[in-house]
Amino acid sequence: MPVAVLTFDGFNELDSFVSYLIINRLKARGWQAFITSPNEHVASMNGINIQAEKPLEFAQEADAVLVGSGTKTLDIVNDSSLMSRIKLNPDIQLIGAQCSGTLVLSRLGVLETGVACTDLKTKPWVIESGLEVLNQPFFADGNVATAGGCLASQYLATWVMMKLGSQRDVEAALRTVAPVGQIEEYIARALSAVAPYIRSSSGVSAIADAV
Amino acid sequence: MPVAVLTFDGFNELDSFVSYLIINRLKARGWQAFITSPNEHVASMNGINIQAEKPLEFAQEADAVLVGSGTKTLDIVNDSSLMSRIKLNPDIQLIGAQCSGTLVLSRLGVLETGVACTDLKTKPWVIESGLEVLNQPFFADGNVATAGGCLASQYLATWVMMKLGSQRDVEAALRTVAPVGQIEEYIARALSAVAPYIRSSSGVSAIADAV
Repeated sequence: MPVAVLTFDGFNELDSFVSYLIINRLKARGWQAFITSPNEHVASMNGINIQAEKPLEFAQEADAVLVGSGTKTLDIVNDSSLMSRIKLNPDIQLIGAQCSGTLVLSRLGVLETGVACTDLKTKPWVIESGLEVLNQPFFADGNVATAGGCLASQYLATWVMMKLGSQRDVEAALRTVAPVGQIEEYIARALSAVAPYIRSSSGVSAIADAV
Repeated sequence: MPVAVLTFDGFNELDSFVSYLIINRLKARGWQAFITSPNEHVASMNGINIQAEKPLEFAQEADAVLVGSGTKTLDIVNDSSLMSRIKLNPDIQLIGAQCSGTLVLSRLGVLETGVACTDLKTKPWVIESGLEVLNQPFFADGNVATAGGCLASQYLATWVMMKLGSQRDVEAALRTVAPVGQIEEYIARALSAVAPYIRSSSGVSAIADAV
């Protein structure tokens, strides 16, 4: 179950690494997330240089694509040669965006409902792109999701694991990242953030008992 | 206000980057966190190669030192030449550890109370090192703190900001990382995790009104 975490120059470390690490907790179950970038090396918003694991073209091979956030997203969405390298297909892939990643999905035309989540700083730009921004951490419609606020990336990862896996996968992964003594609380909060959107897309209430 | 985030080979991405990013949210107020490592490059537990910002020796210049976690901590604490490069002084510095970082502080002899937090996987090793492990995400005594579970690193960062700064600093930083729509809840939970230890160390109830 390959997952591409799209990570650009100026990236927010949490917006890429929270979902990356959570999904990689399930490596033994066949899941793997990859830092996926336009270049071999990218620098974070705080100046950390990292080596990417996959090129942007990898996104079209992944079962899920999560678009990270950063300080240069406005430049990225206006870079047509870079944007043309991102091929997404919501019919057969899960597609999610974190914070300013929502702008990337907006530009790629995959946010068909016209409603999205993003962080408070990116909000004016997302509105300008023609979307309504919700005052909540997570929203999904079918195979496309958006999240706002760095730590909401745990909900994006939860959604991917619920949609492509099971509640058991979610629990196994979150159990290893939640604060000690608050594990059940963290799992319940994450399930409750994504539950309404798992129901509406599949037509069944798979996790109704859990939240 | 320089903060060293000690980051070794095999490091857990969240255990270093959550506190790193949160503290760097206060750059404009004079705070800065640095990825501080034994070598110029270190590889994460999931294989991400990053370039460190400071050598280990930087730890003794920092106002706060947070020891990250990873898959190679047992090797690290047994590497006497590496350990001898880490000079910490809890009389004049704040010192914190995240998950298996607790083993590093145990070996360095700075956990004088004999009580600590760590993650569930490291717990047996911490007990073997002679400490009692608490079933809670955060514990501090004076200038030394430990946290368990990756996302408890937000509490470690909160403690540093409260001790060296103010509740206003905590709120400013957490506001930019909490999930949208859950900001006040995240701030309250973080303040409540550290509040008992701010009180007991300073003798005043600086944040009693807040939690």
